[in-house]
Amino acid sequence: MRTVEWVDGGVRLIDQRLLPGRLETPVYHDYGEVGRAIRDMVVRGAPAIGVTAAFGLALAGFQIRAGEPAAWRRQVQAAAAELRQARPTAVNLGWALDRVLRVLDVSPDLTVDQARLALLAEAQAMADEDIAINRRMGQHGAALVEDGDTLIHHCNTGALAAVGFGTALGVIVTAHEQGKRLHVLVDETRPRLQGARLTAWELKQAGIPFDLIADGAAGHFLRTGQVQLCLVGADRIAANGDVANKIGTYPLAVVARENGVPFYSVAPISTVDLAVPTGDGIPIEERDAGEVLDLQIGGAGVAPAGSTARNPAFDVTPHRYLSGLVTERGVVRPPYSHTLARIVNG
Amino acid sequence: MRTVEWVDGGVRLIDQRLLPGRLETPVYHDYGEVGRAIRDMVVRGAPAIGVTAAFGLALAGFQIRAGEPAAWRRQVQAAAAELRQARPTAVNLGWALDRVLRVLDVSPDLTVDQARLALLAEAQAMADEDIAINRRMGQHGAALVEDGDTLIHHCNTGALAAVGFGTALGVIVTAHEQGKRLHVLVDETRPRLQGARLTAWELKQAGIPFDLIADGAAGHFLRTGQVQLCLVGADRIAANGDVANKIGTYPLAVVARENGVPFYSVAPISTVDLAVPTGDGIPIEERDAGEVLDLQIGGAGVAPAGSTARNPAFDVTPHRYLSGLVTERGVVRPPYSHTLARIVNG
Repeated sequence: MRTVEWVDGGVRLIDQRLLPGRLETPVYHDYGEVGRAIRDMVVRGAPAIGVTAAFGLALAGFQIRAGEPAAWRRQVQAAAAELRQARPTAVNLGWALDRVLRVLDVSPDLTVDQARLALLAEAQAMADEDIAINRRMGQHGAALVEDGDTLIHHCNTGALAAVGFGTALGVIVTAHEQGKRLHVLVDETRPRLQGARLTAWELKQAGIPFDLIADGAAGHFLRTGQVQLCLVGADRIAANGDVANKIGTYPLAVVARENGVPFYSVAPISTVDLAVPTGDGIPIEERDAGEVLDLQIGGAGVAPAGSTARNPAFDVTPHRYLSGLVTERGVVRPPYSHTLARIVNG
Repeated sequence: MRTVEWVDGGVRLIDQRLLPGRLETPVYHDYGEVGRAIRDMVVRGAPAIGVTAAFGLALAGFQIRAGEPAAWRRQVQAAAAELRQARPTAVNLGWALDRVLRVLDVSPDLTVDQARLALLAEAQAMADEDIAINRRMGQHGAALVEDGDTLIHHCNTGALAAVGFGTALGVIVTAHEQGKRLHVLVDETRPRLQGARLTAWELKQAGIPFDLIADGAAGHFLRTGQVQLCLVGADRIAANGDVANKIGTYPLAVVARENGVPFYSVAPISTVDLAVPTGDGIPIEERDAGEVLDLQIGGAGVAPAGSTARNPAFDVTPHRYLSGLVTERGVVRPPYSHTLARIVNG
């Protein structure tokens, strides 16, 4: 089952907030609901929200009733603008919407019915490509993994973060398929616990040995020489190679470099935003404090009543902490301002 | 109320596992139970477990029925050995037991009844001294805090971690009492959440503004220039200044230094272990995996069934990441192998 699929004239998602306890697969028939599902993290992971937004826009195309092509196109543009607001940090969301809209630009004479099908076909193509791109990243990245390695992985970058294979976790799965014996230390990834909930679940299904760790424990394992490689995803990569990714990535990268452990971000080229010169230009989403505060142990709340919290969902890792960026066209190395532009443009 | 007190011929503790939801104050009348309370973290925090062990040994003195002084002393020694096993990392535990036992060494001719009272008097003195020492550390440390500072604090180092005032949190409280306006970013401190449960509770009671953050978020605030000072405690300080403290301290220290933010460990001199040359010689307790795995959100478990975890409770911060060590005799600076020996011995 794919993380996001077009089913029965709607967009089917896996509600990732309920995993691993429960598998629910709601089908959305309203593009506004698709936007809310992205915002509320029913679906998350930069590649997955990109394709979800693309299907959401295709859905909008069918919903919008205007029979006159120009009016229909204006309303589709408005729907895209609405979907674009769902989450600010991952560039894949805007990239995917732009790519679907381009179908209309290059074919200005389509009827409304033709245009509807063209939007859907483009979203479908992106979903299929995503898996193919993931597989290629997996191949390139697996060459960096050696038999016997212990890896640290942050957040979730597996099949659930993409359409069906994954980015950093796809590298780990590929190396495992190649017969390399691996052990993964899985950052639980507070506050949303994507590591404890989703990555642990995917590794278990793949039969790859792992141990969960508290995010703060990664440093201990790095400093004591128990880790050979760190792999993470990316939500947006600036033109100079700075990487925005799940909160907690930056300290992991700093400590990895401090201990001479290679640290790679694995992401499709669609994650690169050449329009943003450095990481300082990437908007960092701050989410609801409840994500930090609403924690229970033994059925009881943890933080005292009336506590407040800060909850930045992402941080920026300056490029100097990266050993490289793994893309579907190979591993990109410094100087990123040169190599990234070259790989994006062809 | 003190964190640990001698009450009704027994040792009264605050059960810190239940805070902030519930305040329970069990009184222990068996020294073996005191050891288990330390092990199970009814009481935690290096200074607090030191004094608790001291009272536990005094309790053993009353429990041990041998009327003949030599036999009684042998059994007291055995009880001390048992208490010493409760937790391995914090040196204060062994230090406190040694100090209480020394009372017997210097007075070899006491009757059993006299010796019992001498043990208790020494434990009482240590409890009172602990508060006085905390206050002095607070004064020395508060000089490092400026009006308007935002601080990051890890774990709990407040009144609950000591007998009654605190180490790093005592510095913050002292600076607040001096009229300095502060804001504290409180690391929630997975897996046991001492920050979210205990530090948030103490700051709230003290009226000091704070926000909880996920441990992984500290790096973002440091990198973006929002933090002026980091303060933590210590469980054991090696002769060269390396600091063992709650897991997650080391990455915080590395990222603080990377961003030029001062990072101090605040601890009484009893935390210094000159017998251990470097941090590599400090035993790191690995606790039960359930502390990482038994997490709930919305009443549901998080990690998939059958998951395993690694759970080191402490990490070592090499001395080069420290700006200094705040003790009751002032702020100790490099070269620590020289300055620590001097301050311990005089």
